[in-house]
Amino acid sequence: MKHTSELVVRTYECDAYGHVNNAVYLNYLEYGRMEFLHACSFDYKGMFAAGYYFYVTHIDIRYKASAVLDDRLFVEVAPVKLQKVSGVFHQRIYKEDGTVCAEADVTWASVSSATGRLTPIPGAFMVEGLKPDISDAKSRP
Amino acid sequence: MKHTSELVVRTYECDAYGHVNNAVYLNYLEYGRMEFLHACSFDYKGMFAAGYYFYVTHIDIRYKASAVLDDRLFVEVAPVKLQKVSGVFHQRIYKEDGTVCAEADVTWASVSSATGRLTPIPGAFMVEGLKPDISDAKSRP
Amino acid sequence: MKHTSELVVRTYECDAYGHVNNAVYLNYLEYGRMEFLHACSFDYKGMFAAGYYFYVTHIDIRYKASAVLDDRLFVEVAPVKLQKVSGVFHQRIYKEDGTVCAEADVTWASVSSATGRLTPIPGAFMVEGLKPDISDAKSRP
Amino acid sequence: MKHTSELVVRTYECDAYGHVNNAVYLNYLEYGRMEFLHACSFDYKGMFAAGYYFYVTHIDIRYKASAVLDDRLFVEVAPVKLQKVSGVFHQRIYKEDGTVCAEADVTWASVSSATGRLTPIPGAFMVEGLKPDISDAKSRP
Repeated sequence: MKHTSELVVRTYECDAYGHVNNAVYLNYLEYGRMEFLHACSFDYKGMFAAGYYFYVTHIDIRYKASAVLDDRLFVEVAPVKLQKVSGVFHQRIYKEDGTVCAEADVTWASVSSATGRLTPIPGAFMVEGLKPDISDAKSRP
Repeated sequence: MKHTSELVVRTYECDAYGHVNNAVYLNYLEYGRMEFLHACSFDYKGMFAAGYYFYVTHIDIRYKASAVLDDRLFVEVAPVKLQKVSGVFHQRIYKEDGTVCAEADVTWASVSSATGRLTPIPGAFMVEGLKPDISDAKSRP
Repeated sequence: MKHTSELVVRTYECDAYGHVNNAVYLNYLEYGRMEFLHACSFDYKGMFAAGYYFYVTHIDIRYKASAVLDDRLFVEVAPVKLQKVSGVFHQRIYKEDGTVCAEADVTWASVSSATGRLTPIPGAFMVEGLKPDISDAKSRP
Repeated sequence: MKHTSELVVRTYECDAYGHVNNAVYLNYLEYGRMEFLHACSFDYKGMFAAGYYFYVTHIDIRYKASAVLDDRLFVEVAPVKLQKVSGVFHQRIYKEDGTVCAEADVTWASVSSATGRLTPIPGAFMVEGLKPDISDAKSRP
């Protein structure tokens, strides 16, 4: 499953250069992931109530073009890896004309609130959407 | 008790005009109030653990001069009113040369986490510092 | 003219209490004003290029109810005062069920980039939308 | 040259889990780099006035431990690579007890404001501090 959210750059997200500040892209990526989780019916609040949450362990982001005030941006999310306690999302942020502003790999892990330790995602919360698209993998030589 | 904290304007706090964005001043005011609470030995975390917290109900802020990157700012806090469930802090943000950037009255109220309703501050958490300075009041005609 | 924008509360806008932080409401208000300016065809970028900008001089905001993650919020803007160099917007932020989260009066002034001083809005940039609704005033006894 | 800045986690930097939000770490890294540039007498504002600025092209950050309200954090910066138009800083964010919260490699490039293109750092702005520590390299087998 590949999912895309939309947003428009707001004034306070731009820095003194008039560009979206590099930290704000991480906010956009997080927004895109939350919208993705909604779209695949992942029960985020239920999982938190049950004592588990997703912790981001690694972000590798490349900034390719600046975005400015009023730009309409698209935030794409595609799961590319899924293991027992962790996974990786590939994310892209691009403009209406297709220009890619940023591209990132975001690694997350499932954590128990009680112990603060890595723990497998409880089966009850596992959804199809978290799994990488097999047809995608198949199409690779 | 009047308390003053210091901070230096950071890059990501400036907007496209190169000025500190108006919402960021509210972050500065909050930072100043937290430092004030520390300074008067108010047990903020203990109060939260006990099921109470301070909720800001009203902010009246006047912006008087712009602050820019690297400006050293001072955030002053003085309690000017204290009632059973609420109080008011007068706050000023000024530069090293005395220029006032913003001046605000911030009204807070004590809330019970369980009910979400206003409730008197438990006696165990009441500290002298929350009370307006009497000498101050006396000096007024 | 009264204008309303929509937004959904994002994860990073919530603080340690799980509520939208009070400074974030100022971001929402600013977002609402920008959408309002777009809607009434105000040439914001043109005015800035011509050497003028709007400076917020005063915000008086009352917090009435907490908003939390995923809440859909409406940001309403209505001009209630217009003078040569300044004006006032009345703004409300409310939920789908009508609960008002915050209500504010935001005073702005027109400033010259060159001098940093208050200056009348150039006629070329004055639009109908900035004027308070007369029918509104008429309906008051 | 290795440089270390200090900061204390502020309320509004924590998210609904009570942890510093992952995007905020990028703010901390930027703060640390700016303090580093000050410390090595790099004329940041002069370079901008002359028509050049540093653009962050790549951030690779690993989150290792959570930071919470009132934690005192140290932000370390060490240049590890320097080429004609770009360079890499290695940065670490750690607590007083030495616990590392995050570790990152930040790649920057020099850009001309006029063209938006990569361009060598003008000689007048090149400072010793941007160069990786040779003694460091020597000590490697």
